[in-house]
Amino acid sequence: MQYWEDIEIGARSSFGRYEVTREEVIDFASKYDPQPFHLSDEAAAQTYFGRLSASGWHTCAMMMRMLVDHMKTQDQAGLGSPGIDELRWLKPVYPGDTLRAQSVVIDKTPSKSRPDMGSYRGQTTILNQHDEPVMTLKSIGLIRRRPENG
Amino acid sequence: MQYWEDIEIGARSSFGRYEVTREEVIDFASKYDPQPFHLSDEAAAQTYFGRLSASGWHTCAMMMRMLVDHMKTQDQAGLGSPGIDELRWLKPVYPGDTLRAQSVVIDKTPSKSRPDMGSYRGQTTILNQHDEPVMTLKSIGLIRRRPENG
Repeated sequence: MQYWEDIEIGARSSFGRYEVTREEVIDFASKYDPQPFHLSDEAAAQTYFGRLSASGWHTCAMMMRMLVDHMKTQDQAGLGSPGIDELRWLKPVYPGDTLRAQSVVIDKTPSKSRPDMGSYRGQTTILNQHDEPVMTLKSIGLIRRRPENG
Repeated sequence: MQYWEDIEIGARSSFGRYEVTREEVIDFASKYDPQPFHLSDEAAAQTYFGRLSASGWHTCAMMMRMLVDHMKTQDQAGLGSPGIDELRWLKPVYPGDTLRAQSVVIDKTPSKSRPDMGSYRGQTTILNQHDEPVMTLKSIGLIRRRPENG
């Protein structure tokens, strides 16, 4: 089990492979972000995007799926996340793209109020198949501290 | 049409009504955030959440749907968003909850590189039916400036 004590500042990881399909882009956008450029090529042609592109929130959701699949291989004593800083959508994500993730731990802090818990921040970059960053974010993770008898 | 010039710092808006269903919580989590506490009451009972709760990214997606529906009533010359700052998940969102949104404009900036464009930042709070804030975020919006002959 990986505890707060095991998190190393500067530690890097690469994970995930997510194939973005037209069907999924339209399905997500229809439910959660029905702006025309996320629903059809014709509407998107008149905008910055040029053609049908994924909702930025869909890219977040795809990032999360890659992260959850990655965490399953790690057996980390994670306690969820209180939030995200500096989320940036840098380039459009298009159907046919294949996404992957890179993460680096930027800092870690023991909890003042809960001696059994700590937090850390990671900078995550989502890249497409051309190795172009399409999204970056800084996420805060909560994690258990190693039990004293552990 | 609402342009950058029409955005007023301090302007407040309240919008949206989103009924969170168990079926949708499980559907979103199955695709994008398959952690046990987002998939079943039994698994969630052993965690901070207590019972089945929505993925934080699902709450973002529901916020976006309320925002898009609200924007449709406004006819704003919006150009999308480059990102989000200080996203915080404050309380769990449960099936049966009804969400709504409150927003306030916190600042606005003309673009240095593009005289036809400006940006503004809004602080948005998502509340549940008990008027408890469940999520807050600061979003950046890009918007056209009023044409000189407009």
